[in-house]
Amino acid sequence: MESITTTWFDPLTSTAEMRRIFSDQARLNGILRFESALAIAEAKAKVIPSSSAEVIASKCRAELFDIPALSVASIQSGNSAIQVVSALTALVEQEDAVASRYVHWGATSQDAMDTGFVLQLSDALDYFESELLRLAKSLALLAELHKHTILVGRTWLQHASPTTFGFKVAGWLNAILRHIEHVQERRERSLVLQFGGSSGGLSAFDCQTSIVAQVLAEELRLACPVISWHAHRDRFAEVSATIGVMAGTLGKIARDISLLSQTEIGEVAEAKKPGRGGSSSMPQKQNPVGCAMILSAANQIPGLVSTVLTCMIQENERGLGGWQAEWEAIPRICLLAAGALAHLNDVVDGLEVDKIVMASNLEMTDGLVYSEGIARALSHVLGRARAHRVVEDLCHQVRAEGISFRKSLLDSPEVLNVLTVNEIDQLLDPERHIQVASMQVDKVLKQYSEFLSKIAQLNRRAS
Amino acid sequence: MESITTTWFDPLTSTAEMRRIFSDQARLNGILRFESALAIAEAKAKVIPSSSAEVIASKCRAELFDIPALSVASIQSGNSAIQVVSALTALVEQEDAVASRYVHWGATSQDAMDTGFVLQLSDALDYFESELLRLAKSLALLAELHKHTILVGRTWLQHASPTTFGFKVAGWLNAILRHIEHVQERRERSLVLQFGGSSGGLSAFDCQTSIVAQVLAEELRLACPVISWHAHRDRFAEVSATIGVMAGTLGKIARDISLLSQTEIGEVAEAKKPGRGGSSSMPQKQNPVGCAMILSAANQIPGLVSTVLTCMIQENERGLGGWQAEWEAIPRICLLAAGALAHLNDVVDGLEVDKIVMASNLEMTDGLVYSEGIARALSHVLGRARAHRVVEDLCHQVRAEGISFRKSLLDSPEVLNVLTVNEIDQLLDPERHIQVASMQVDKVLKQYSEFLSKIAQLNRRAS
Amino acid sequence: MESITTTWFDPLTSTAEMRRIFSDQARLNGILRFESALAIAEAKAKVIPSSSAEVIASKCRAELFDIPALSVASIQSGNSAIQVVSALTALVEQEDAVASRYVHWGATSQDAMDTGFVLQLSDALDYFESELLRLAKSLALLAELHKHTILVGRTWLQHASPTTFGFKVAGWLNAILRHIEHVQERRERSLVLQFGGSSGGLSAFDCQTSIVAQVLAEELRLACPVISWHAHRDRFAEVSATIGVMAGTLGKIARDISLLSQTEIGEVAEAKKPGRGGSSSMPQKQNPVGCAMILSAANQIPGLVSTVLTCMIQENERGLGGWQAEWEAIPRICLLAAGALAHLNDVVDGLEVDKIVMASNLEMTDGLVYSEGIARALSHVLGRARAHRVVEDLCHQVRAEGISFRKSLLDSPEVLNVLTVNEIDQLLDPERHIQVASMQVDKVLKQYSEFLSKIAQLNRRAS
Amino acid sequence: MESITTTWFDPLTSTAEMRRIFSDQARLNGILRFESALAIAEAKAKVIPSSSAEVIASKCRAELFDIPALSVASIQSGNSAIQVVSALTALVEQEDAVASRYVHWGATSQDAMDTGFVLQLSDALDYFESELLRLAKSLALLAELHKHTILVGRTWLQHASPTTFGFKVAGWLNAILRHIEHVQERRERSLVLQFGGSSGGLSAFDCQTSIVAQVLAEELRLACPVISWHAHRDRFAEVSATIGVMAGTLGKIARDISLLSQTEIGEVAEAKKPGRGGSSSMPQKQNPVGCAMILSAANQIPGLVSTVLTCMIQENERGLGGWQAEWEAIPRICLLAAGALAHLNDVVDGLEVDKIVMASNLEMTDGLVYSEGIARALSHVLGRARAHRVVEDLCHQVRAEGISFRKSLLDSPEVLNVLTVNEIDQLLDPERHIQVASMQVDKVLKQYSEFLSKIAQLNRRAS
Repeated sequence: MESITTTWFDPLTSTAEMRRIFSDQARLNGILRFESALAIAEAKAKVIPSSSAEVIASKCRAELFDIPALSVASIQSGNSAIQVVSALTALVEQEDAVASRYVHWGATSQDAMDTGFVLQLSDALDYFESELLRLAKSLALLAELHKHTILVGRTWLQHASPTTFGFKVAGWLNAILRHIEHVQERRERSLVLQFGGSSGGLSAFDCQTSIVAQVLAEELRLACPVISWHAHRDRFAEVSATIGVMAGTLGKIARDISLLSQTEIGEVAEAKKPGRGGSSSMPQKQNPVGCAMILSAANQIPGLVSTVLTCMIQENERGLGGWQAEWEAIPRICLLAAGALAHLNDVVDGLEVDKIVMASNLEMTDGLVYSEGIARALSHVLGRARAHRVVEDLCHQVRAEGISFRKSLLDSPEVLNVLTVNEIDQLLDPERHIQVASMQVDKVLKQYSEFLSKIAQLNRRAS
Repeated sequence: MESITTTWFDPLTSTAEMRRIFSDQARLNGILRFESALAIAEAKAKVIPSSSAEVIASKCRAELFDIPALSVASIQSGNSAIQVVSALTALVEQEDAVASRYVHWGATSQDAMDTGFVLQLSDALDYFESELLRLAKSLALLAELHKHTILVGRTWLQHASPTTFGFKVAGWLNAILRHIEHVQERRERSLVLQFGGSSGGLSAFDCQTSIVAQVLAEELRLACPVISWHAHRDRFAEVSATIGVMAGTLGKIARDISLLSQTEIGEVAEAKKPGRGGSSSMPQKQNPVGCAMILSAANQIPGLVSTVLTCMIQENERGLGGWQAEWEAIPRICLLAAGALAHLNDVVDGLEVDKIVMASNLEMTDGLVYSEGIARALSHVLGRARAHRVVEDLCHQVRAEGISFRKSLLDSPEVLNVLTVNEIDQLLDPERHIQVASMQVDKVLKQYSEFLSKIAQLNRRAS
Repeated sequence: MESITTTWFDPLTSTAEMRRIFSDQARLNGILRFESALAIAEAKAKVIPSSSAEVIASKCRAELFDIPALSVASIQSGNSAIQVVSALTALVEQEDAVASRYVHWGATSQDAMDTGFVLQLSDALDYFESELLRLAKSLALLAELHKHTILVGRTWLQHASPTTFGFKVAGWLNAILRHIEHVQERRERSLVLQFGGSSGGLSAFDCQTSIVAQVLAEELRLACPVISWHAHRDRFAEVSATIGVMAGTLGKIARDISLLSQTEIGEVAEAKKPGRGGSSSMPQKQNPVGCAMILSAANQIPGLVSTVLTCMIQENERGLGGWQAEWEAIPRICLLAAGALAHLNDVVDGLEVDKIVMASNLEMTDGLVYSEGIARALSHVLGRARAHRVVEDLCHQVRAEGISFRKSLLDSPEVLNVLTVNEIDQLLDPERHIQVASMQVDKVLKQYSEFLSKIAQLNRRAS
Repeated sequence: MESITTTWFDPLTSTAEMRRIFSDQARLNGILRFESALAIAEAKAKVIPSSSAEVIASKCRAELFDIPALSVASIQSGNSAIQVVSALTALVEQEDAVASRYVHWGATSQDAMDTGFVLQLSDALDYFESELLRLAKSLALLAELHKHTILVGRTWLQHASPTTFGFKVAGWLNAILRHIEHVQERRERSLVLQFGGSSGGLSAFDCQTSIVAQVLAEELRLACPVISWHAHRDRFAEVSATIGVMAGTLGKIARDISLLSQTEIGEVAEAKKPGRGGSSSMPQKQNPVGCAMILSAANQIPGLVSTVLTCMIQENERGLGGWQAEWEAIPRICLLAAGALAHLNDVVDGLEVDKIVMASNLEMTDGLVYSEGIARALSHVLGRARAHRVVEDLCHQVRAEGISFRKSLLDSPEVLNVLTVNEIDQLLDPERHIQVASMQVDKVLKQYSEFLSKIAQLNRRAS
């Protein structure tokens, strides 16, 4: 089992799985998987002897290599594959001098590095998909459970009108379903073989032997691109942006949860556990640690995505400075996003929801959150503009005099000209405002269950 | 015809078409198209009287509104729809008091602003698609024309090995085809109706009348989302990122062209026109103005994309600060990208390609660019590592003594032990290195022509 | 008086003053001020005839130029100065053929554009300074007024311990004073003359005539740099970053105000004015429009700063793509920051502060916000760790049983072993916790008044 | 000696010194230095017993703590100080139960974390200053050496007019001197003590004991701020931006060197060393590895700076998500910038400069680079506009007919009407164009030597 180098904040900001995917060992493995598959493909295409390919493949095992030495050597070469290829050649040569001739045949370092990285990214996208599915499942349960749990909608950080907590969660779920689709698409479409040789044109091969690329892709279970893409990084940029947009949604959900968790609002809370979210000074503290870390990631990822976009401007056949920046920027995006996703899964799984506080907060403005419905009812007779103004004035009165909105309505001759007390009371009933919201929750839950069926079907087909 | 406000650098950095799409008039039109379609849809759904809908729709004409006044008023309201709705209500009321009651019925300002913006973005994506198709066509011609035009591949800004100019252009084209697909997908999938009312749950409607949303979407020829999405901005972020990644490719192409245009390299040049790229001080100057502007845009867009991602963290049902930032950041991305794309179309259309200089630059290192092929040939006998070292030493000798690489090979007993003079000369023939490159050009051109057929088919089906 | 082109959101997102500073007219003026001062300096240095300089200077008036025509022409030239110089030359030639020879003598377009831009930036920094001073004044009054206004401190969006509103405001003020200093420094140190000629080395001049640079700088009241800096943009990047950091503070203050303005918290509010912060659907709404726009700006500026930093990587003597990006990115930073600053000045000037709600929110957890003080008092006897644990347990009890913290303390034998009832009551008195906070407010106010004295002194010296 | 955790690319992208400064051990040390100094200061201020302070201080040794355990624990607490304080309390308690009461007295975790981080940043700025001084020294030597080495100036990636290599280097040096000043200023002004307690107002203290803050600052040799600044991050943002701007200049220099190193230009080269910049496929390759890594860093840092700016928007007394993001983003800026600076020091120290190639490139356009001087000379008689046009036409002729510029001049009656052959030949002499450039080199060297004197003086005063 690989040991992963971990620094202080790593366990807090990322996950062990993602650290493994982007560990030095995994980086080395990616390069070696390329070199091994290359030899095998070239043997199949009769470019190199089968016996040589076997020896080469047998040496492509990470444990035979000394990563700290490779790391130090990369200072001179400026990349990670050259030394791996040298070390591999030496290992092969010890066993079979002929085979050593065919190590890395026709390839260039970037072929090995990019393809190895594609393999790592593929694992990363698998991981994101499974964690997103886990999140979707929890959100679906939560939305179902709170389909009719009424709380006040808040816009511009102010009370707006009644909605349900299930509706809120269904909005989160709906976005997460889009992110799953996007992650799936990127894995299928953005992750392709890199194989071009020194200047991209596979100059070591001719028309017959150019079949190697196709065979190599099959060996690695990657799509074979129409043309090599050393200096075209749009696929990696798309992957980065897809994760970046996903992180934006995670941040939005964490912002919502943390706002609802404020002491004065108290409608939800992260699960309370001993030692969780404490303070070194204040014994009463239960800080929303999960949300803090999700927001931290969502704050950092946009800058990293902009780096990846900036670095697309690569020179000629292979770039100077742009490619190199990807090596650390893209893993960083994945690590932070994985951390955020894991935290959100924890937060949602343990989320404490307080319906009573929700109901009580809804009424804290003594009915002002129903002003829209009243104004709409009045507008049938008063017209839209006048109705709005009349209700606006009543709202001011409510605030100024500290009376309830209902009382202000019942005191208003203009209102009573249009609405009966009974009608007014119906309009002040929150249930009346959430019918379509509840329908939409059902629609999202249906979308989710269809989504699961489609995935199950695809998985059956694949197996 | 609309007059578009233009400031000094606008004609240089964007295009008239995109400025029209994001003009104030177009913004107003977007809001009015929403309000008009809303009234019509609500009439169809029997929510409001048909006669009212007709009057409302008849007043949804931009020329009836005073944009400067709306602009000043938005300082108080903090958005652009509230005043439009007020002004529209007043216009309708002048003609039909009853109809005025139903203006904006059940909607909130963000419904109108977001949907209007979606309509603008849809125009923007159409424009990008057509300009990308134009670019693809020119690149396909250029790739075909220069399929066999040999030039030196350059990696890390240094001579690498021979390739063809057609291969380079095919790489550009291949990326552009991906961007067209992505733009098409975003238009189909990211651009959907916004309609949720004050807190997103369409509280003005009940289960029967909730059909309005679907009818409204049909009126506007937009997809109807499963749930409203006021505070979920991932669709806009995806659109922004898609354009951002496209801009990265435009920047990469411009970087290539500008590097090949350097005085010392001189392999290509932007078309020379009187007054184009001159200097106020140096009469000999013909600056690559097009590339400069493309690179300028590609430098600016990543930061704007990061803004859009950051702004996804929106609060509760509608956000404070994040939504507002989109209003200017996303149009800015489109304007800059449109400018870059137009400049690139101009640059490619007029590109001057100098085959003779390409051939001559290839040979300026007296053959060193063939070292890879020689090393590979030697490795059959000497093994990979030793062959690499032998050739490396000869390269040093070539540089130190100023002799040709061919001479150094013919002087080397180690080389002559393995290769005949005839074999050496074959390896020094650039044609030998570009076979697969040319095949790849053909593949990309085939991909392009299939791509065109698919689009033509879709268009036939659509019409 | 200049007419400034304004689009819809401009009045909402920037200010008329800053739009004037970065208007097309002002850009033209900047270039013309350079050309005029250049001619005068060259006449003083005996490089060109005085009579020519007079004619040239007399034609450097913006109203003689056709900006739309200059704008269209910049498509060909790729910059804004070349056409201005041509048009100026033509104007001068009409009056004095000899003088026309000496227009733009020894300069290059970037000299005129950069220096003109420096003059605009200088106005922008003046404007920022005066608006920041205005803000500081209001904050000082507010801090003084609320030095003893107790409210609950909030950390990680949770109640922490008592502090004062004056302390909060003093923290804002203290940061604003740093920003004023930084703006002053940038104006003095980052805004210097650009004058280098075609390749930076003033090749039109010799050792005697090189004095022109110094004289020109004096004419324009700019510092003269030791060497020209066409491709070294760190000074502009420093200015951009300084404004960017300032915008971060404005965003922080707006975040604070908008959080305190939430319906459930209600401790402060933006001033209520008719039509301010309304909604198209909800008559009760009073949205914090000012805070929204400040946060929008603070969300956008970091991406723009990153653009300016990215664009520093300029090629050789003058860059391709990096310089050009500054033309729009830097004004955009200034416009957004000016808008944010103006909004914040408005928000602070009209801020409604509700001491009663502050006091009541402080007590809403029935005393838990005093847990830190109790734990500290207990730790004298129980030790730090055990005291923390004891109080933590009491906090859980308070939450679980709905009793007050005081009651839980009085019920606890462990507590009563250490503290008397009287001591407990003293520890539950908020006044006890804000002594040093109030001292710090005084220190900040003293710092502010010393700051004002220093500025007054400098102004006296300058006049 | 501390062992620093290093992953594959760390040695390539950063430096051992900076990794040590931001290692887990150093982070722990920072926190412990705060806790130790706090106890000592509180004893001096008679807040806690001296004997307790001594015990506490004696336990503040990193080797007594288990970082991996602290790291895992931070998942629950969400920060790094809480567990350190607990562990420290336990260690102290083992020796002296009374002392354990006074660990972390009156402080909050952020006080320890921020102050510890300030101490780390202070080391980082010291390191940057010394590396920048080393760079300045090398650049000064290089500028002096090549004061008269003529090469062609290049603007917009095209030949412009003659300049000198010394002038180019002096421009670099001049910018580096500004960065040194800025780094010094940030160290003096941005790095101050953080000490505020739970809500910032030092509620554990009263007017007498508030002196602790000042004593604590003295203990740590940090400035004591007027007010605590938990949620005001402008100082850290300023530090980040200062390093970010510096990185832009490093990127600019690397861009210059890599462009001049292109095979076709060949005016400079990174030092050639065995194994340096090789390729896995092409034996002739000597890639500019140093420049690649500098450009990679300069591409990444702007996005990180934008993150730090975005994260300034922190909530109330202590933020949620913004503060946490700094923990990794700011060290990352420092690590990448340190790597870039070290690479640039290496590149400059070993830079190979080829004067002969410079001279030959200057003449490769057969004299067109002198067109500006000719046009200026002609304009005395022909006027500016006509002279520019005449020379522009001759330039076209030179390019079209392949003749030399000199010949085209001697063939032109219009030119010969104004200039004698002798005058023309003087204008075609590059020496004529570099007089002021050389003067400016001298000025920069003088500035550098004065700069050194000032530093020496400051150092003498300090010691």
